[in-house]
Amino acid sequence: MGKTKLTITDIANMAGVSKATVSRVINKTKPVSSEVRQRVMQVIKETGYKPSFVARSLINKETNIIGIVVPDISNEFCSQLVQGVVDVANIYNYTMILCNTFSNYEMEKDFLEVLSEKEVDGIIFMSYTPSDYHKTFFDQYDKPVVTVNSKISEFNKPNIDIDNELATYDATKYLIDLGHENIGMIGIKFEDYTTGQLRYNGYERALLENNLKYDKSYYRESDFSVEKTYEKMEELMNLDNRPTAVMCASDEMAASAITYCIEHNIKVPEEVSVMGFDNSKISKLFVPHITTVNQPSFDMGAIAMRLIDKMKGNTDLEKDFYKLPHKIIERDSTQKI
Amino acid sequence: MGKTKLTITDIANMAGVSKATVSRVINKTKPVSSEVRQRVMQVIKETGYKPSFVARSLINKETNIIGIVVPDISNEFCSQLVQGVVDVANIYNYTMILCNTFSNYEMEKDFLEVLSEKEVDGIIFMSYTPSDYHKTFFDQYDKPVVTVNSKISEFNKPNIDIDNELATYDATKYLIDLGHENIGMIGIKFEDYTTGQLRYNGYERALLENNLKYDKSYYRESDFSVEKTYEKMEELMNLDNRPTAVMCASDEMAASAITYCIEHNIKVPEEVSVMGFDNSKISKLFVPHITTVNQPSFDMGAIAMRLIDKMKGNTDLEKDFYKLPHKIIERDSTQKI
Repeated sequence: MGKTKLTITDIANMAGVSKATVSRVINKTKPVSSEVRQRVMQVIKETGYKPSFVARSLINKETNIIGIVVPDISNEFCSQLVQGVVDVANIYNYTMILCNTFSNYEMEKDFLEVLSEKEVDGIIFMSYTPSDYHKTFFDQYDKPVVTVNSKISEFNKPNIDIDNELATYDATKYLIDLGHENIGMIGIKFEDYTTGQLRYNGYERALLENNLKYDKSYYRESDFSVEKTYEKMEELMNLDNRPTAVMCASDEMAASAITYCIEHNIKVPEEVSVMGFDNSKISKLFVPHITTVNQPSFDMGAIAMRLIDKMKGNTDLEKDFYKLPHKIIERDSTQKI
Repeated sequence: MGKTKLTITDIANMAGVSKATVSRVINKTKPVSSEVRQRVMQVIKETGYKPSFVARSLINKETNIIGIVVPDISNEFCSQLVQGVVDVANIYNYTMILCNTFSNYEMEKDFLEVLSEKEVDGIIFMSYTPSDYHKTFFDQYDKPVVTVNSKISEFNKPNIDIDNELATYDATKYLIDLGHENIGMIGIKFEDYTTGQLRYNGYERALLENNLKYDKSYYRESDFSVEKTYEKMEELMNLDNRPTAVMCASDEMAASAITYCIEHNIKVPEEVSVMGFDNSKISKLFVPHITTVNQPSFDMGAIAMRLIDKMKGNTDLEKDFYKLPHKIIERDSTQKI
């Protein structure tokens, strides 16, 4: 054999087992007796054999490709989600087809058709605008699917998200516990259910449950843009009885709100506390460093990939909704009043 | 036929041409006479036929999948590069297999093996640590390959990058033109050829060509980390004759350097000008907004994908090196001395 690269067939022959057994030992896809496992691992150790993606794919008759459909890979949430998927995909020897939809409905349709045609082993699907088409597609699709973003929880597929209502409740409560009573929020339009409606709900509930007056003028609707958020912060800061704390639906929005303050000599956090959402890079780098809510986007991707792998192995999932824990990250943009 | 979805075969039959011809009209892969083109377009218009990825793939016997290998999708440069690839891939009806290597050599090897095995139509390859293995692989690989990052220009494959030496020269010259004479730099270790060595070269050349003294103690080596850059800025600011301007090898490093200044009451840009590199989100959001060098990462991805498509169509490329234009973006972290 000389320099020829070892194949899984060689390992199987040396260990006196089938290729499928070697694969099971390597990939831990199905149980193997400990005696057989030890024998195979011994051969792998002695030969220095390094299993490749290809080896696995060839014997399994599976494509070992999973599809991931996301709205916008340049968005930090999406890129970290994908990073989480990739991290676990590497462990389990999957390759990934990345479909970036730019939130375009026709593209989402086309990509799902492609993934189905390419016989991928499973799909991780994230969309801001789920539709009947998607639901019908997934109802008929018989391979593993995991959805991200609780808006699409009605798809009857395992779903991963944080609890957006509770997260914003906790963030607002954090500001209340600092002594703030006049708390404003710059949010997202309600059509965006998870980041808009749910985050608003959490904000309102925190105020009401803590016997604080909910003043409609304290809630301003923006989008994720820097410019619009800047305007909304201006409106809030120009109110007669202006808020002493402002909750923002994203870190970039918080950065923009603080920028307004810096440029108008309103001290953050001395005169107004500002809170972000996401725990993205900007929240760590911005000065003052921004107090925020961590969304475990990397973990969400990693778990999505693990679920796909479990479902492929016909393992029953324990539950359908995976609400991952959020966490308040205290930094320098908030303080006691 | 009723509700059955139209296929490319239907269109071919109605127009009295082959499926391949319909494909050529749709995908513009090869020239078709204007008379035939009009006839096919007429049928497409009348029937409302919408070509899908799948239709193209089936008739072409091509996979219509391209592989993209990047070190770190959560890095903004990479995610924008991928976004650029995706944007053009959608136009030309390609799907993409994304391989995230975490700069791990074994993973790069495995991924290249997978992409070869999956018979993708081409590979866009980016690596910080090119090796003989990669070179040998690409020498033997007969499908289109485009490399990103000029470090791997010796691979004899079309290569896309900016001119890192000239970009840093221009950035340093920009500071010189503002009247600065004591200009420091926080750079990257030279083993990282493009961001380390080349950017240093540009900095040094700008000083020497403009008859400024090059003082070794003004150049500090960091990595891309916030902590280390903060330390290096501290060292520079504690020099007896401290620099009045500091060039940084990335925007995040610039943000970190400015953070040191804010926390130690050194006014930016009044007392020290700080310049970044990349024109990433942080440079726009940080206060003061950071003067920086734009790298057209999205365009780099878009062009890489166009080149792959051209090469697939056996179009000869005009050149092998595509040095894309950089641009100084003036913001608030620099000023005249």
